[in-house]
This record gives sequence, structure tokens and C-alpha cells, in this order.
Amino acid sequence: MSGDRYDDYREDVLGRANVADTAELRDFYRDLERQHAGALWTVANKIEPWEPGSSSVPVVWRYDALRSHVLRALELVSPEKAGRRVVYLANPGRRDVTAAVGWLYSGLQVMGPGEIASAHRHSASALRFIMEGSGAFTNVDGHKMTLGRNDFVLTPNGTWHEHGVAEDGTVCIWQDGLDIPLMNALEANFYEVHPELHQATGFPIDDSTATWGNAALKPAGATWSQRYSPLLKYEWAPTYEALVRYAAVTDGSPYDGIHMDYVNPFTGGPPMATIGASMQLLRPGEHTRAHREVGSFVYQCAKGAGYSIIGGKRLDWKERDIFVVPAWMWHEHANLSERDDACLFSFHDLPTMRALGLYRAEAFADNGGHQPILG
Amino acid sequence: MSGDRYDDYREDVLGRANVADTAELRDFYRDLERQHAGALWTVANKIEPWEPGSSSVPVVWRYDALRSHVLRALELVSPEKAGRRVVYLANPGRRDVTAAVGWLYSGLQVMGPGEIASAHRHSASALRFIMEGSGAFTNVDGHKMTLGRNDFVLTPNGTWHEHGVAEDGTVCIWQDGLDIPLMNALEANFYEVHPELHQATGFPIDDSTATWGNAALKPAGATWSQRYSPLLKYEWAPTYEALVRYAAVTDGSPYDGIHMDYVNPFTGGPPMATIGASMQLLRPGEHTRAHREVGSFVYQCAKGAGYSIIGGKRLDWKERDIFVVPAWMWHEHANLSERDDACLFSFHDLPTMRALGLYRAEAFADNGGHQPILG
Amino acid sequence: MSGDRYDDYREDVLGRANVADTAELRDFYRDLERQHAGALWTVANKIEPWEPGSSSVPVVWRYDALRSHVLRALELVSPEKAGRRVVYLANPGRRDVTAAVGWLYSGLQVMGPGEIASAHRHSASALRFIMEGSGAFTNVDGHKMTLGRNDFVLTPNGTWHEHGVAEDGTVCIWQDGLDIPLMNALEANFYEVHPELHQATGFPIDDSTATWGNAALKPAGATWSQRYSPLLKYEWAPTYEALVRYAAVTDGSPYDGIHMDYVNPFTGGPPMATIGASMQLLRPGEHTRAHREVGSFVYQCAKGAGYSIIGGKRLDWKERDIFVVPAWMWHEHANLSERDDACLFSFHDLPTMRALGLYRAEAFADNGGHQPILG
Amino acid sequence: MSGDRYDDYREDVLGRANVADTAELRDFYRDLERQHAGALWTVANKIEPWEPGSSSVPVVWRYDALRSHVLRALELVSPEKAGRRVVYLANPGRRDVTAAVGWLYSGLQVMGPGEIASAHRHSASALRFIMEGSGAFTNVDGHKMTLGRNDFVLTPNGTWHEHGVAEDGTVCIWQDGLDIPLMNALEANFYEVHPELHQATGFPIDDSTATWGNAALKPAGATWSQRYSPLLKYEWAPTYEALVRYAAVTDGSPYDGIHMDYVNPFTGGPPMATIGASMQLLRPGEHTRAHREVGSFVYQCAKGAGYSIIGGKRLDWKERDIFVVPAWMWHEHANLSERDDACLFSFHDLPTMRALGLYRAEAFADNGGHQPILG
Repeated sequence: MSGDRYDDYREDVLGRANVADTAELRDFYRDLERQHAGALWTVANKIEPWEPGSSSVPVVWRYDALRSHVLRALELVSPEKAGRRVVYLANPGRRDVTAAVGWLYSGLQVMGPGEIASAHRHSASALRFIMEGSGAFTNVDGHKMTLGRNDFVLTPNGTWHEHGVAEDGTVCIWQDGLDIPLMNALEANFYEVHPELHQATGFPIDDSTATWGNAALKPAGATWSQRYSPLLKYEWAPTYEALVRYAAVTDGSPYDGIHMDYVNPFTGGPPMATIGASMQLLRPGEHTRAHREVGSFVYQCAKGAGYSIIGGKRLDWKERDIFVVPAWMWHEHANLSERDDACLFSFHDLPTMRALGLYRAEAFADNGGHQPILG
Repeated sequence: MSGDRYDDYREDVLGRANVADTAELRDFYRDLERQHAGALWTVANKIEPWEPGSSSVPVVWRYDALRSHVLRALELVSPEKAGRRVVYLANPGRRDVTAAVGWLYSGLQVMGPGEIASAHRHSASALRFIMEGSGAFTNVDGHKMTLGRNDFVLTPNGTWHEHGVAEDGTVCIWQDGLDIPLMNALEANFYEVHPELHQATGFPIDDSTATWGNAALKPAGATWSQRYSPLLKYEWAPTYEALVRYAAVTDGSPYDGIHMDYVNPFTGGPPMATIGASMQLLRPGEHTRAHREVGSFVYQCAKGAGYSIIGGKRLDWKERDIFVVPAWMWHEHANLSERDDACLFSFHDLPTMRALGLYRAEAFADNGGHQPILG
Repeated sequence: MSGDRYDDYREDVLGRANVADTAELRDFYRDLERQHAGALWTVANKIEPWEPGSSSVPVVWRYDALRSHVLRALELVSPEKAGRRVVYLANPGRRDVTAAVGWLYSGLQVMGPGEIASAHRHSASALRFIMEGSGAFTNVDGHKMTLGRNDFVLTPNGTWHEHGVAEDGTVCIWQDGLDIPLMNALEANFYEVHPELHQATGFPIDDSTATWGNAALKPAGATWSQRYSPLLKYEWAPTYEALVRYAAVTDGSPYDGIHMDYVNPFTGGPPMATIGASMQLLRPGEHTRAHREVGSFVYQCAKGAGYSIIGGKRLDWKERDIFVVPAWMWHEHANLSERDDACLFSFHDLPTMRALGLYRAEAFADNGGHQPILG
Repeated sequence: MSGDRYDDYREDVLGRANVADTAELRDFYRDLERQHAGALWTVANKIEPWEPGSSSVPVVWRYDALRSHVLRALELVSPEKAGRRVVYLANPGRRDVTAAVGWLYSGLQVMGPGEIASAHRHSASALRFIMEGSGAFTNVDGHKMTLGRNDFVLTPNGTWHEHGVAEDGTVCIWQDGLDIPLMNALEANFYEVHPELHQATGFPIDDSTATWGNAALKPAGATWSQRYSPLLKYEWAPTYEALVRYAAVTDGSPYDGIHMDYVNPFTGGPPMATIGASMQLLRPGEHTRAHREVGSFVYQCAKGAGYSIIGGKRLDWKERDIFVVPAWMWHEHANLSERDDACLFSFHDLPTMRALGLYRAEAFADNGGHQPILG
């Protein structure tokens, strides 16, 4: 409540607050302020909106534009000084927090051959999606993994993790995704540097994928008590193959085409408690219908080219471009090729929304399910 | 990042960002800004703090001071215009949101005899704790309940609810508790006014308590698929009796004395998905040890008098006073009477923290577990 | 398959086996027998019946008749020699196993003042329901409980337990209920005598009830990882009070009147993994409608008098009488008093049926829901 | 209790029943019998054994011996008359029930080209493991699947199912596995013939495998409320590949080599509520150590040759042979080849044991973990 006015949020609707300022009321409000209090009806319509309105805006970050800046970080700062050389994505609608959309952070990290970042752990849940280069690896609680293009990798909250690129590798770039903003908002964020700065490798290379990345099989009698998946790396080849197989027997989702969630094989649930991830395939020429969801999404195009209409705004994308869908905003996707499929990787906070009982979705009813494109 | 400086958050610690500004870097940063991007190392130490630091501050709202203001609302605004006549509590550390602490809203609501508020529903989970007056009632999805002093009542997210006071009742005041700030932060808040403004009573009065408020018994073969408790009212008399019985067989918690959680009898879990509530009894002369938790707490003294030390600040309280404990802040409680017990009601967001795997607690190790009181 | 005939189970129904014996087939069958094999069609209709037919029969054991025999056991054998002085109930339809009905064992145990049985533990889950006498106690894993009339007590599988009667008590009789037959059938029964024959009392008397027997409250932040309830004793007074309260707000079940399940307060589920228990109140003059369920039931009349019709057979009962309902057999209950309520305690294997996805129930459709009484 | 003796089960151990017959006691026992009752101490040591002793015995059914009999069924009976042409396996220790081991049924089913069995459903959970032939298919609730060698297929309880062989196929043989004996023992078995005798195919062929048989991916936002797996067919090729991949990163189980459980991809749990299944690979020359488990197992050798020692008895097996391990009986496995791996498929009742909290296992401690072979 700023200035002298307290009745900015009046609505002339039964069941909503509709109290006009008077001198007497203004005195009352000021009395309350002195007591660290206020009158609910001056803010009720503001804090109880009819439906969510995201403070984030739809944006696309084109890789063509960003890549050279990311590479420049290699020269400008050392990993020792920078911790990690990352260009983060800043949603113009989010001034107060470092977020790509909603409470999700994302950035592009770069490492050169032979480099290793120090190991740390934190309350934030993290993932990466590999964009380019060879020889990248990550080590999560002693499980070392080799990383290839379009692989999706977890570094769950509370796990020690460190990244690097082999001596005989090339410059590598990957997308980081974390819920740092959510952890800070929830006042739940802890951070630790590994006491020895680096971890030993305690298991055979890629053991997590060999153990847990098998269709509908798990080690006999295995137990697992963590809230995150024992499978840490989801490789691209079987993921793409799964989409193609599934496409042959399903009509797909009218809103998302051939759409699959990465899961924790031990529970069938999401890979981490707060962040989920999906891969979807848009068939040649497919243009989906619009819907909106409680939850925020960060997309990366993993294959092909197309565009999305988000909140009435068309954003074109091609391989490696990143874009975001704010919460409760209409969105639909189109594959621009009539011959090739297009694949979109995404991560999102739906597990958070579902854990708290907040998820809902709504279809765009008019115009055959397609939004008008706004000026 | 404001002004010309980008290196405000440097830390000279291995594994942390420690990059000094240079002209070249500043150019780089400005280039990134134009692309809705930034360099992680300029903000990394800020957004990945070593541990949470709450933006809320400890406050006590004394009922003696607030009560007359609450009663004045009766005269100043009509329920039709105001929706609800509520004085909300505003934490001085939370400028941007209407919160008593963290993401929890609280307020004092007042109604006169014969008044009924209109029915609505919303994504926010709500509770009330009855402070004074007779004849109050609430109707949740057709279940009408009579409300007495120190009763704890749910109006869960998604349920239609309305409140009122019987014609032959007296002026009633109760504390409201909601997670409105969290719902807004998560961009998940929906609101609806009941199409007929009022609900019919569809069940015998107080049926929820008669059906579900029995110790270790439930209707045979009952099913329940909601995320909230089928028990909507937790009465004071059996709650206090439970604390006294439990006190006879336990040493209690070193941090919280005789401390019990209100539960959903169908699951044994918290009454609502995002908000929990507890009642604790401090034995005569008891002074607990300090600890801190990931989670925010709103307390109301239900019986007796004492004080709490929160973040090194002593806050005295007696019956009906309300105070808050911000997340990850040391807190300890003391009963000032050597003869009578003292009871503290609280509600908190621990179910949210636990659902997301974020809860942790730490004991204050020094000085026998007692904080020094800060200037 | 006995004698020379292999076609005893033929059914002239499409989709069922209907193969007449021939000399050639009989040779084939004998060849198979020599290989520890057989032809499915000779037994298919037998082992895949259209619906379950229990091998148990309805029985009532009248306490007037049984009590003197139970008391005689006091003189005839010592607790040291007998282990426990128990008269078990033997369903006439179950020759091969010691069962009251289905896979449930029950017996009447008697102990005199000052006696203590030795401690043991086993895979079978056990309960008792107190019938008469004062001063009885039981000790489960160090939790000592005093036992009164109509109290329901758990001694879950895997817990050390021992029973006794105080020096200043009287002769006590209680009903034991166990799933011994099921444990043996599943080839999962283990038994151990306590290495010191007796346990120490490790907690305040009746601490489990004071801690966990409170309506919709549990110790704050409590954890519990066992498959059975942390509440070990369910007392009669609050149980009866709950039935009376619930009766005021419900029409009750058409089949079971005012019917409540004892629950594990930590989960809201059944008190033990394999055995559940219920108490039901039949209002004055109430005669319920018949239904049948997958599951077996052992009843004891805790209050009043009436009769049940089970599989077309009327069984009259009054306080302390025990009767059984075999699986998938029609049953209905009647209170013979027009003035007083009648209460039936029961234990059953529904948790087993539900855990395996097998529970189902069916209402008796004809004749207003009432069975004809068979010759 | 047969004949005149009631003291057959005496044990001279403190805490066990040890009552010698007397004339007076015998009179007492006979009095009790007339009341459908008995004295617990006459049977206590029998019904509460120190540990389980299975009534089943270890057996191997060699395919070489059985196959010709199975094929003869083709000529001897028609599918219309027989319902299904199956040779069932009868454990010599189980006289009273048709069981291969414990409460598990198994049989070998044969069908010729162009044959289709009628559709039915039942409470028993069923699976099949394909042994030989081409063109076999099964249809489960409208999901038609093609079946190949070593494929593992579910026909869960309550689902309509029918089997057949394509016109251009060959004679097909598969192993059936069901829990028919358990369903009958639990008095929970229902059976229905499909009203139209045959189902339509309602989905693309093999859609369940294409949809759910992908590593760590599921259809986005999918829901599933059945107690059994939405994946109905687990193919051999990816199963064997998984074992080989897993073998590269694990030491395996000392008791079972490279050992994986088939899982329900929606939950990570067993494929059906009562029956689980596993595949294990014994590396060239591997001889595992002995252990015993609460649970019964039916094995089929899917690849290679070797032997198992079960309860001190050596049973040799090669591809297609079937053998059983009774509950709580020591067992160890050996691969006879120094060059090739050997694979054992098994199904078992561990999900039942785990659902009821009864599973336990014990390692054979002596002799390096290897049993002496008994006479």
C-alpha cells in the first residue's frame, strides 16, 4: 500500500472487498501500520486474485546469439576464480531473483579440455542437458558419468558433485537447470564446498545407467531411500528410440504431441522431489492445441526447428535454442518441418506443484484450440 | 546487480566465486544484460548462501494492543463491503508480500451476532484458531461446525467455506492462518465466490468431529481421497487432555516440551498438504533449549504466560498474544509460572518443507542450549 | 483325483473343462502322474470355482458352556508345563488346521493372581480382547499395560510379549486372536523364547495409550517404521463413547450398523499387517441387511444380546459369546433388545485381503436383504 | 490329534508345552472336543514351530521328458472340450492342492496354428513364459501381444484374457504360472467366462510394450490405478541385454549372481500384487553360495545349463527345464559352462510375503556357503 490511497484494489463484485477510502478509515489504517498490521480488505483482492498471473514473461534465448558469449567466459575467467563459468538466463519479468522463469534457474556452462570444477553440494536440485562437445563428465557421490549430446543428467540436492572435461575432449557446453530461486524463497538453501575439493570415483564408470537404466527391470530386492532417482544419467539414444516407439501406438497428447516424462525407476515418480523433466516429439507438420498449467517450464530444442505460441506471442526456435513458458500461460507448439520430427527437452516444477496438491491444467477452448497472436 | 559494481558478493574461499571487476568484464556483463543474461559468478555467492537467512523478523503482536482495533472494524466496515473484517499481521521484514512470517499469512477476524460472511473457495489452505466469543460457526462443504475457545478448525484448499455467528451469540474473534503468500509466490492461486453466495448445511452439525475425532477409530472401511483431513474441527478439551496424559509418560522434547501435532486421522499425516499445526505444553517453570528449523512458525499463546527467545531477542507473551519464528532462526521457550502450565498453539509450513525433502533442524550447542540475549 | 475316475469335475458350460474319461486318456493321465504331472482339464473346474466356498462353517461358542472348562485348566496344568493355559476354538469344517474360521486362530486364555507367563515372540500377529477379571497385564517390548474388560490389545508379530495377573488381582480370562494358521500355511512361521524368559518394563505403565491413544494428535515429528501400530491398547470406554458419538451423526452401515475399525494412529491403516479389528454397535431393535465379503471374521459380543444369521443359520449370542463368519458367506445381525444397544467386537483378515487386492463384498439382493433361514 | 494320544508334540524346553497325558486330562480333552474346542498345549508346539518347514519338495521337470506328453494333448483333446490344453506340474509333497511348489501353480500349455482359446478372467494372477514355437499371441483387456521365445507376459487378476496362435504360426508351448492355490486357500477365487467368449482388439498390437517398456520414461502425466503393471509383455532381448550391461558394473549377488526383478514401471514395484518374477544370469563357471528365503520359487532355465542344490539335493537343468525351490530351504546355483553364461527365469510369491511383512532371508554360514549334498 503506497502513497495515500488504500482502495486501489476495489472490485464491485459480491463476495469481494469494495471499501472506499474515508478520512476515518485512513486514520484506522495508519494506526494499524504502527502495530505491524493492516486491514485485509485493502489488499484482499490483490492477494487473492481470481487466477494466477505470472510475473515471468515468455522469452527465447537463441543459441546463435548466446554461444559466443558463453565461449568468451573461457578466456575471461578461470574456473578457480569463477567457481563455474556460467552465463545465466535472466527473465525480464523477474527483477528480484535470478530466474529463467518462475522459481527455476537456468544457465549455460562451459568447460575446456582438462578442466575440473571443484566439488560442492547444496539444497538446490540440479540437472544438466548436454549441448555440445565431447569428453564431458560429471561425478555425483562417486558415480562418474560420461556425457554426450542431448544426455540428461541429475545432480540431486544433497549430493556431492563436480564436473569436468577429459584431457582429450573438446570445449563442452551444457545447460544447467536448478531450483535455486525456490530454495532461497523457501529459506531452505544450504551450501557446502567438498572438504577435499574433489571426490574419488567409487564405482565403475556409468554404473548408475547400467544398473538402473534398463526397461522395467531393477536389481533384485534393491532398496533405495533417497527422494531422488538412483538413475543419474538418461541417455539420448534410448530416449529418442522410446519416443519413436511410443509414437507408433499412440495419438499423443493434443497439447504436447508424443510426450514422455523422465522417471525415477525405483518409484515411477519424478527424478527429483522438486524438478521434473520431459522430452517430447512433434511429428512432421504437427501443430498442437493450446493449454495452460500451474507450473513453469524451461525448454530446449534438442532436434529440428519450429515455434511456440506462448501467451499470444510467437517464439521461433531451432536446435539448442532455449525458451520458457510461465505458469498458467497458454502455450502451443508447432513443428515447422513437414518431413522431420522436432524434439523439445524441458524441465519444470510440476513435482513441486503435485507434491503440494496445486497442479491443474486447462485447455484453450476457442478457435480450434489456437491462440490469437498478439500484436 | 545495481550501479556499476558487479563484484559485491566476492568471497575469498576456495570453491566460491571471487572475480574482481575489470573494464573488460564490465563490458561483458553489459553485453549479457542486453541478451537477458548474466555471469553466474557475479551472483553465485548471493544466490547460493552458506545457509538460509530469513527476510522475516521475530515479532510479537500483543492482544491487549490489537483487540480494540479489531473491534473497531466492526463499526467501520460492513461484511458485505469488506468481504471479511480482518486485521492482518504484517511482518516488518516482508515488504513485498502480506505475510506474518515467511510465506504464511495471519489475521484476526471479527464478526458480530447474526452476521454471516459469503461463501468462497481458493487454492490457499486456511485454518482458524478461536480466540473469544460464543456462537461462532463455520460451514465447510456443507459440514457446519460450532466453534469454541481454542478450537482449531480447517478450511482446506478447494473447499467452499463461510463463517458466521449465531443470533444469540456474542462478538467473536478468531485468528486466521493461510498460505496465501505461498500460493501467490508459486503462481498457483485461484479464487471463486460461491454461485449462491451461501451454502446449505448438508450434514448433522459437527458430524466431522463425531465421525473422525475419535482416538484410533475410524468408520469401518471408510475411504477418503482428498489431500486434507476429513476431520475439520479439533476441539480444545480433548487436545489439552491429550497433552496432560502424554506429559505423564514422556520427558518431552528438549526444545518444545510436551509437543503434539494435529493429524489427519485418515493418514496420520498433516491436516493439510501445505500447513501443519501443533499444540505444545510447557510445564511449570520449564525453559526449553534452543534449536532452529527449516520452516516458519506462527504461534498463539492458548493458556498461561511466558516468553520466547527468538534470534537472540526476548518476546514476552500471555494468553491470546501472537508471535512468529522465522525460518532457520534459533528459538527457545519459557513458562514464567512455577505453578501452572502454559500452552502454545502454532501453525507452520513444515508439511511443505517435508513434501519437498527440505526439512532439517539443528540444536544450539553452546551455553547449555541457551542463546545469549542480544542488545 | 482318486480312484479310477478323472472326470468328476466336468461342467457342460462353454469355456469350462468337459472331457469324458476314455481308456486312452486314462493311460495318458497315469503317464503324467509318473512324471509328477497331470492334465489341467481333469481338475480345472475344481481349482477354478465360480466363486469361493469356505471350508469353515458358522459356529457359536457360548461362554456359559465354555467358561467352566476354561477355569478347569487352571487346576489341571501349570503355566510352566502348558506354556499358556488356553482352550482353543476348533471350527468343525477345518480338520487339518487349528482354526476358529478360515486361517484365524482363537482361544480363551486364563491366568490366576500372581501368575506370569514366559515371554516369547513369533511371526504370527496376536491380539487379545479382555473378558473378565481384574489385574491382568501384558508387556510388549517393554511396554507394560493394564487390561480391563473389553479392552483390545495388540501383541504384534516380532514383538516380545508376556502376560500376567497382579498378586492382588482375580482370575482373568481373555480371548486370544492370532493368524497362526495363515503363518503356517504361508510357511513363514518363526518362534523364539525370550533368552531371559521375562522382559523388564522399559517405559511408564500404559505409555503407549497415553502417547498414541489421543484423538487426531500425535507426538510432534514422531517417526515409526514398524508395520504395526505404536498404539498397543485400545480401551473400552473411549471406544464405546466413539460409537455413541458417531451414531448421532450417521445412518450407519445397512449391513453392520454403527461400525468402526480400530486403526494404527500413525498411518490410519489397520493395527497389524495381517489382522484388523472392529467394534460395531447395533441400535435397539436394529436388524441389518445381509451381505458377504472376501474375508473371515471372529466375533465376540461385548455388550447386550442378539443373533446373527450366517449362511442361512441363526446363531443367538449374548455378552461374551463368540461366533464366526466364514468367507463369502451371507451374514446379517440383529439386536434382540428394543431398549439397549448391543456391541460386537470382531477381528478379521481383511488387511490381508486388501494388501493382496482381493477384498470384495456383495449385498443380498432379495427379500429386503434378509436371508431365508435354512431348515 | 489322532488316536488316544494327545502328547505327541511335547518339548522339554522352557517356554514350550510339555504336558504328559493323564486319564483326567484325556477326559478333559474329550469334553472340549464335544464343544468344538481343544487344549492349546496339546498342539502348541506343532502349530508354533521354531521355523518354517515346507511341505513341498525340490523337483526338476525335464523338458526332454515332458515335451512329448504336452504335444500329445494336442491330439487327445480339443480346446473347446479342455478349455486349455495344459499339463500341470504336481509337487509330490503337496497332495491336497494342485501346486508346483507352495501355493504356486504351474503348467505347460500347448496350442496349434489357428487355434484360439476362449476368454475368461479370475482372481488368480497369471503369467506365461514362452518356451517354443512362433505366432503365439495373447489378448489382455483388448491389448493384443505377439509372443516370442523367453518373453515374459502378464495376465493379471481381473483382466479378460485369451491366447492363440496365428494361422501361419507353428505349434507353441509356454509355461503358465498362477497363484490359483493361494486364491483357493484364501477363499478368494472368482471365475468368469467372457460373455462373448472372445474379445475385440482395442489397441495397436504390442502397444503396452511400446508405451511402458522404455527405460526410465513414461507417458507424460500418465495415471494408473490398478494393482498390476500397465506393461504386460517383457521381451527377452532387452532383458538379456540388461543383465549383460548390469554384469559389467556389479559384483552381483553372492547367492544369485546377476539378478534382476521385472518391475511395474509405474511404481517400481512387482508386476502383480501377489506374484513377482526375476531373471538371473550365472556367469561362466559361477557357483553361488546358499541362502534360504521365506517364499517359494518356480524356475525355468532360459539359457545354458547347470545345476542347483536345493535342500541338500542336486538337481541338474538345461534350457527349458523347470525346477522349484520350497520356502525356507537352502538353495545355491551353479553354471556348468566355463564359457557361456546361463540364465534362469523365476516367478515367486515374494510380493505376497512382503505385502504381509513376512519376508526374511538367511545365508548358509558353514563350509564356504555351500551345502553338503545329502545321500
